[in-house]
Amino acid sequence: MPPDKVTLPMDYEAYFAERLDALKSEGNYRIFADLERKVGAFPRAANHRDGGVRDITIWCSNDYLGMGMHDTVRGAMCEAINRSGAGAGGTRNISGTTHYHVLLEQELAAWHRKEAALTFTSGYVANLTTLMTLGAQIPDVVLFSDELNHNSMIEGVRHSRAPKKIWKHNDVAHLDKLMSEYPKDQPKVVVFESVYSMDGDIAPLDEIISCAEEHGAMTFLDEVHAVGMYGQRGSGVAERDGVADRVDIIQGTMGKAIGVVGGYIAGSARMIDFIRSFGAGFIFTTSLPPAVAAGALESVRYLKDHNELRERHQERAATAKHRLRERGIPVMPSVSHIVPVLVGDPTLCKQASDLLLDRYSIYVQPINYPTVPKGTERLRITPTPLHDDDAMDYLVDALCDVWQTLGIQKVPEAAE
Amino acid sequence: MPPDKVTLPMDYEAYFAERLDALKSEGNYRIFADLERKVGAFPRAANHRDGGVRDITIWCSNDYLGMGMHDTVRGAMCEAINRSGAGAGGTRNISGTTHYHVLLEQELAAWHRKEAALTFTSGYVANLTTLMTLGAQIPDVVLFSDELNHNSMIEGVRHSRAPKKIWKHNDVAHLDKLMSEYPKDQPKVVVFESVYSMDGDIAPLDEIISCAEEHGAMTFLDEVHAVGMYGQRGSGVAERDGVADRVDIIQGTMGKAIGVVGGYIAGSARMIDFIRSFGAGFIFTTSLPPAVAAGALESVRYLKDHNELRERHQERAATAKHRLRERGIPVMPSVSHIVPVLVGDPTLCKQASDLLLDRYSIYVQPINYPTVPKGTERLRITPTPLHDDDAMDYLVDALCDVWQTLGIQKVPEAAE
Repeated sequence: MPPDKVTLPMDYEAYFAERLDALKSEGNYRIFADLERKVGAFPRAANHRDGGVRDITIWCSNDYLGMGMHDTVRGAMCEAINRSGAGAGGTRNISGTTHYHVLLEQELAAWHRKEAALTFTSGYVANLTTLMTLGAQIPDVVLFSDELNHNSMIEGVRHSRAPKKIWKHNDVAHLDKLMSEYPKDQPKVVVFESVYSMDGDIAPLDEIISCAEEHGAMTFLDEVHAVGMYGQRGSGVAERDGVADRVDIIQGTMGKAIGVVGGYIAGSARMIDFIRSFGAGFIFTTSLPPAVAAGALESVRYLKDHNELRERHQERAATAKHRLRERGIPVMPSVSHIVPVLVGDPTLCKQASDLLLDRYSIYVQPINYPTVPKGTERLRITPTPLHDDDAMDYLVDALCDVWQTLGIQKVPEAAE
Repeated sequence: MPPDKVTLPMDYEAYFAERLDALKSEGNYRIFADLERKVGAFPRAANHRDGGVRDITIWCSNDYLGMGMHDTVRGAMCEAINRSGAGAGGTRNISGTTHYHVLLEQELAAWHRKEAALTFTSGYVANLTTLMTLGAQIPDVVLFSDELNHNSMIEGVRHSRAPKKIWKHNDVAHLDKLMSEYPKDQPKVVVFESVYSMDGDIAPLDEIISCAEEHGAMTFLDEVHAVGMYGQRGSGVAERDGVADRVDIIQGTMGKAIGVVGGYIAGSARMIDFIRSFGAGFIFTTSLPPAVAAGALESVRYLKDHNELRERHQERAATAKHRLRERGIPVMPSVSHIVPVLVGDPTLCKQASDLLLDRYSIYVQPINYPTVPKGTERLRITPTPLHDDDAMDYLVDALCDVWQTLGIQKVPEAAE
């Protein structure tokens, strides 16, 4: 008898290599900057590269207000570590709820003027878990999701396996049309963000909420790029617009303006208890370290009382947009603290970022696919209250030189 | 014309209340203990309840070795906070990779003797993201998952939408049978754990890996309840059994024996780069705080060199099992550091836990559905090297009294 034909197993390594090579050839392979931020010197940081270290200025941090550097936050964290230890030691149910978690959730609820709040290991997990739980557990629910929602919301909606309808970005007429296809008593959740972080636009909250009310829908609002930064007390755009009491679920993060890490939701006591009791991504994971809860708690308390930090933040962003535009740099039409500058090509975007770093020690990560659609690659600049006028002058000149050197498209002056 | 029939929207609050009431009536509603662990006094802690505070002893922590209390770990964390700040300030790609992350990933890779490692915000997210990415991205892959795998693996397998086969718990013959239905060149991933944390049994790694090799399958091994605790250098059961080099992906956590928070995978450089480049749950989330990376790094370095901690840990668990069994307390047949004691009813399990706390200031959370199957409700005791003989004597007497008081089933003496 002839020997059996030899069947080889799949060559997994070759497959991984092939996929990585494809990313490289299309300009979307990511190289992470190896950084050391410096307390007292932020936005300056050390950049480790090729065995050497040099000082750079970070212009793309989501520590939007520099609270991650703040004495109060750091002090609270170190105190908690030396009092209660490094980690929580368990899931929330099994020995991992510390008194810091309890106090933080009370503070977050009060900040948003809601009955209760619930923390998660990240904003990503907060979105994923809450939307999966609502979509999977409410009978016959339909989810209505803005087309530009963050990946964490898309995945939450998708994996809940509830029927979903995608509405055109910030288009309330379209949302209304889609919801009109369902009876008023059919359960619905409208899922959207306030500040869309890659474009910097802000949703018309009042109109969206009114539309949801009209159709008997719950509202789920992601404010991760807004908490700490909008509203007199800093709890977000819903506060600024006076509509927070009409939003059923406000979702936020402690990893951006609050300066630490972790995510949360706030809303009615029953809704929070429901997600707490049925959300797998909440139940089956080690809780945040007590120090993270302690730091976030102090940060929120500080942010509530310091509106001048928000004013300075908005001024810095407006100044950056204005000054870049008057030099012809194509700032996208952001109305928020985000300053996105269009490049439109992944390789060119990476080259622009590299040149900024090599020639000017300015670090702005290129934003390519899948974070933004192909053809809209950009540099996303995030001025903080700690970026002073000198740093701003230097940035504007550097960008002009990079645009010139690489021949990137400018816009005519005064096109703003 | 008669008025339109009034259609009311769904009453979401009433629905949430109804579901919560059902949980309560079946004994599965969870009440979290509000704790403050105490550096220098662990396993003692403060328990906040009804406005008061009292000292208790924790017997259910997953800070298995007390590393979350260790000077070295706490010192490294505070130093990182005061040097680099509270949070990372961005995703790994956008300004959130710190030098601490880089060093930690190198250390984790070296620990497992793998080419590379990748950290995630939690072990939950490490499992979910890695399995979703493998299942969704490798063409025609089939996932073979142990029936008792943790929720994070179940969700990762499920949401990848790849075809899946569930094999009977630790049953290699069944795994072999299921894989035999597919040609050798069809991509496959075998997904399993080493220590199953609710029962305390340990998988036959060598046999499972041999079976996978036979069928041309990759292996994905969750060692979250083993890293730090098994093997001469503490990197897990795969090290202890001498099979680590044959496991393709080892997944671990920094939130249990390492004492901090976060998850990771270790494996080939290409596989790691693949998950880094395509895993949504890795890409779209704020990275761990530098202090978490710094603390975990020092903890791993310490654990590598201190096998005596593991010896003491195993001795404590063996002693607890032996002493409980000789008093007729039904310890389930664990071969690991986990000491599960069967109650078999959710309400009784909660009562036993409450009585332990009220009468003896001993905290052991009841483990009910969905964490374990209904009818197998249990108290899951985790002795650490810091639980001394006095604490053990006190625990054994307390459990005997609780069993007596509540009339819970005992086993005959010497039934071990």
